[in-house]
Amino acid sequence: MNGAIPTRLIEKKRRGEELHRGELESFFLGFLRNEIPDYQMAAFLMAVHFQGLSRTELESLLDLMIHSGDVLDLGEIPFPKVDKHSTGGVGDKTSLVLAPLAAELGLCVPMMSGRGLGHTAGTVDKLEAIPGFRTQLTLEEFRSVLERVGVAMIGQTSEIAPLDRRLYALRDATSTVPSVPLISASIMSKKLAEGLDGLVLDVKTGGGAFLPGEEESLDLARTMVDLGEQRGVRTTALVTDMGAPLGHAVGNGLETAEALRCLAGDGPADLAHLSAALVGEMLFLGDLAPTPEDGFERAREALASGRGIDRMAKLVELQGGDPSHVEEPSRIPRAQEIAPAESGSSGYVGGISPTALGYGVVELGGGRKRMGDPVDLSVGFSLGVRLGDRVEVGDPLGEVHARDPAGLRKGLDVLRQAVVVVPEPPTTSSSLIRHRLVG
Amino acid sequence: MNGAIPTRLIEKKRRGEELHRGELESFFLGFLRNEIPDYQMAAFLMAVHFQGLSRTELESLLDLMIHSGDVLDLGEIPFPKVDKHSTGGVGDKTSLVLAPLAAELGLCVPMMSGRGLGHTAGTVDKLEAIPGFRTQLTLEEFRSVLERVGVAMIGQTSEIAPLDRRLYALRDATSTVPSVPLISASIMSKKLAEGLDGLVLDVKTGGGAFLPGEEESLDLARTMVDLGEQRGVRTTALVTDMGAPLGHAVGNGLETAEALRCLAGDGPADLAHLSAALVGEMLFLGDLAPTPEDGFERAREALASGRGIDRMAKLVELQGGDPSHVEEPSRIPRAQEIAPAESGSSGYVGGISPTALGYGVVELGGGRKRMGDPVDLSVGFSLGVRLGDRVEVGDPLGEVHARDPAGLRKGLDVLRQAVVVVPEPPTTSSSLIRHRLVG
Repeated sequence: MNGAIPTRLIEKKRRGEELHRGELESFFLGFLRNEIPDYQMAAFLMAVHFQGLSRTELESLLDLMIHSGDVLDLGEIPFPKVDKHSTGGVGDKTSLVLAPLAAELGLCVPMMSGRGLGHTAGTVDKLEAIPGFRTQLTLEEFRSVLERVGVAMIGQTSEIAPLDRRLYALRDATSTVPSVPLISASIMSKKLAEGLDGLVLDVKTGGGAFLPGEEESLDLARTMVDLGEQRGVRTTALVTDMGAPLGHAVGNGLETAEALRCLAGDGPADLAHLSAALVGEMLFLGDLAPTPEDGFERAREALASGRGIDRMAKLVELQGGDPSHVEEPSRIPRAQEIAPAESGSSGYVGGISPTALGYGVVELGGGRKRMGDPVDLSVGFSLGVRLGDRVEVGDPLGEVHARDPAGLRKGLDVLRQAVVVVPEPPTTSSSLIRHRLVG
Repeated sequence: MNGAIPTRLIEKKRRGEELHRGELESFFLGFLRNEIPDYQMAAFLMAVHFQGLSRTELESLLDLMIHSGDVLDLGEIPFPKVDKHSTGGVGDKTSLVLAPLAAELGLCVPMMSGRGLGHTAGTVDKLEAIPGFRTQLTLEEFRSVLERVGVAMIGQTSEIAPLDRRLYALRDATSTVPSVPLISASIMSKKLAEGLDGLVLDVKTGGGAFLPGEEESLDLARTMVDLGEQRGVRTTALVTDMGAPLGHAVGNGLETAEALRCLAGDGPADLAHLSAALVGEMLFLGDLAPTPEDGFERAREALASGRGIDRMAKLVELQGGDPSHVEEPSRIPRAQEIAPAESGSSGYVGGISPTALGYGVVELGGGRKRMGDPVDLSVGFSLGVRLGDRVEVGDPLGEVHARDPAGLRKGLDVLRQAVVVVPEPPTTSSSLIRHRLVG
C-alpha cells in the first residue's frame, strides 16, 4: 500500500482532486493484488464517473493497465497487424463478419474481445454459441492460429492487461460503464498490448450506445485516437449510429447466425455496409489499399461473393469449434420457446429501441446481472421489421427466443414495447457513419 | 429481487432519476439478504453522494432502515427517555460526559452509538478502552442496565436497524460518509428505533466535521429535526463548531480518560460547556427543566461538583468494565511510545487541524482503513496548547502516543503539521454553539 490510505484516495477523487501517479499505482495495483476490495474500487469508479480523469491521470492509468500484463510482439508475422474495436452496440456483430474478411484480404487480425457488458452482447459470448469454440487460448495457441489463418479471435487472457479484465467485470456489475476515461483506458490497454500496426475504432453514438450523446462519442473517439497515435499505432475512428439495433438479430447465438449469413453474402444491408467500411479503413491503415474508399470497394465485393466464409470455417476449426455451423448457421443451438410478437396497432415503424431489446436479452438470461453470472446464449430477439416499414394490427414484428414460457411472455412484452409504431412514415433518417476521425 | 435488475437501479440513481419505494426496497433489502454484493451497494452509495435522495426516497430509506430490525418500547421505564447524538467530530467525547450526567439529573438515556468512522473516533471504541467494558449487550441486558442506573451505552446491536449497521461500515470504507441524506437516514434510523421521547442532535460544522460547510450542516440539522418530529419524537439540533478538536485528547483511550476527568469536575472548558448545553436541552425536552437555559445551569453545576462520576462507575460495572478506571483514568492502558512534539517556530497557535489529527490517529493504527480492521485504542494525541496560545521554538505542542518508534516519528510529524503557528495572535474566534434548530 505504500502508506496510501485507500479511503483517502477515494475521497480525493470524489472531491475532484487530481491523484498523482504513485497514488493511482498504489490503488490500482493494490486492487489487482486483492489488497483493495471490490467495494472500494466500485466506489472509486463511480466517483470517476462523476469527476472524470485528467489527461495525466488517464495516461498513468493506461500505462498501469497495459503493463499489468504481457505486451505481444507479432513482429515475425509478415502481414500488417490491424485490429478493429467497437465501443459496443445492440445487435453489433460486425467483428464476426469483419475479422475473417480482413484476413482474407491480406491483413493479420489478432482480435481480443470482451464478454457482454450491460445491455450489449460481447464477441466472446457470441463465438461461444458455436459448439466447441474455445475463446480462451494460451498466447502460444493464439499466435499459432494467427500464423496459420491470419486471424484469431479470443477473449481477454489473464496475460494481457489483467487489470483491465478485473475492472471491466466490476464496471459491468456497478453501472459505471459510461465514462469516457474508463472506456478509453479499457479499450486502448487491450489494443495497445496486441502489438498492432493499425487500429480502427467503431465508436457508437445514439440511444443504444454506452455514451448516447454525439458530443461524448466524439470526445471518446478523439481521446482514443490520440492515445493510440501517441504510442505509435495508426488509429482511425468512425463514429457510427446506434439509434436502432444493427441488423435483425439481438442475442448471442442469433447474432452469430446472422453474422455468418452476412459473411456468406446474405446479410442485412446495414451490417454489410458497416463491415465493409471498417475493413476498408483497416486495409488503408495496413497499407493494403491506397485510400479507405478503395479498401471499402474491395471489402464490399469480397463480402458479396462470400469470400470470407472459408476463412471463418478454418478459424472455427483451429479454435476447436464445429465448422459445419459456419456453413449452416441454422445448426447453432436455439432456444426452447420461440414465438412471434404481433403488432398491437397499424402504422409505420417509427423507432426500435436498442436499449429495450438489449436489457430484454439480459432479462431473458442472455446477459449478466452480476460478475460471473452464467449466460444463456440461445435467447434473444429476431426483428422482422425495419425502420419505416408499414405494419397492420396483428402483423409479426419479430420473434422472441426464450428458455421457458415465462421468459417468452416477458420477451413478447419487451419486443412489442421496443418497436414503436407511429401513424405517419418517419421522415428523418441518419446516416450510419456519422464522423471519421484520424490521427 | 422482484425482477429489479440491480445495475439498472444503480444506473437510475447515477442519472439522477428518482427510485420508487419498491425499487429501494428490492435493492436495500436484497443487500441485507446478501443478494446484492457490497460492490454494487458501494457504487450506489457513491452515486447517492453525487445525486442525493429526494425527500420521498429519504423517507422510504429511513423506514426500510428502522423496520429492518426491532423498535424498542421502553414505556415501562418511568423516566423521560431522551438521547443525544453527534454527527461526529475530532476529540468529541461529549457522550461519555453527558450520558451519566443526564441520568444523574433524572433522565433515562438509552444510548446506542457507533464505532470510529473516517477521521473521527466512535463512542463504542472509546468505551472499550476501559478494560472489560462490554458494548455488545443483548436488548434484555440493555434494558436491565437502563432500569438499574438510568443510562446504558452500547454499540448498534444486530436487532436494531441492521441495515444501517451494514451500510455504516461500508460507507466508512468507501468514503461515502459526507452525504446529507445518508447521514440523516443513518442517525435517525437508530435513534427512532430507541423508543425515545426526545432527541438532541449535535451537528458539527467546520473543518473537522464530515460536512464542513455551514450551509450543509444546517441542511443536515433541519432534515433530521423534521424526520424526528414527523415521527413524534421531540427533536432539537445544535449546530456546533468543529474548526478545532474538542478538548485536548484525540484518540480513543486518551479521549475516554479526558471525558472521565471532565465528569469528575476537571475537564477542559469547551468540553464541559458543550456537555452542559446538550444536557440542558435534554432536560428541557424531557420536561425536567422549564427552559434549556435552566437545564444548562443545572447541568453545569452538577458537572462542576463531579456528581456524574458515581453513576458512570455504576454503569461501567454493570456493563462488565473495571470501575476503578473511572475514578483513576490514568489506569486506562497507554501506548508504548510517548513523546512530546516541539514547536519549530515561535509565535501564536493560529489553528489546530482536526482532520490532520483525526487521520493521524488512523495512520497510528487507531482508526479503520477497511471494514472490520482492528483498532489500537491506546494511540493518539494529547494537545498541550489551545488556539491563541503563545509558543516559542522548542516548546511542547502536545504528546504523541504510538505503538512503535516508526509510529511515533509519523505521529510527531502529524502533530507538528496540525498545529499551525502564526506570527500574530489570532483575532477572530467563533462561538462553540452556532445555531439552535427546533421542531
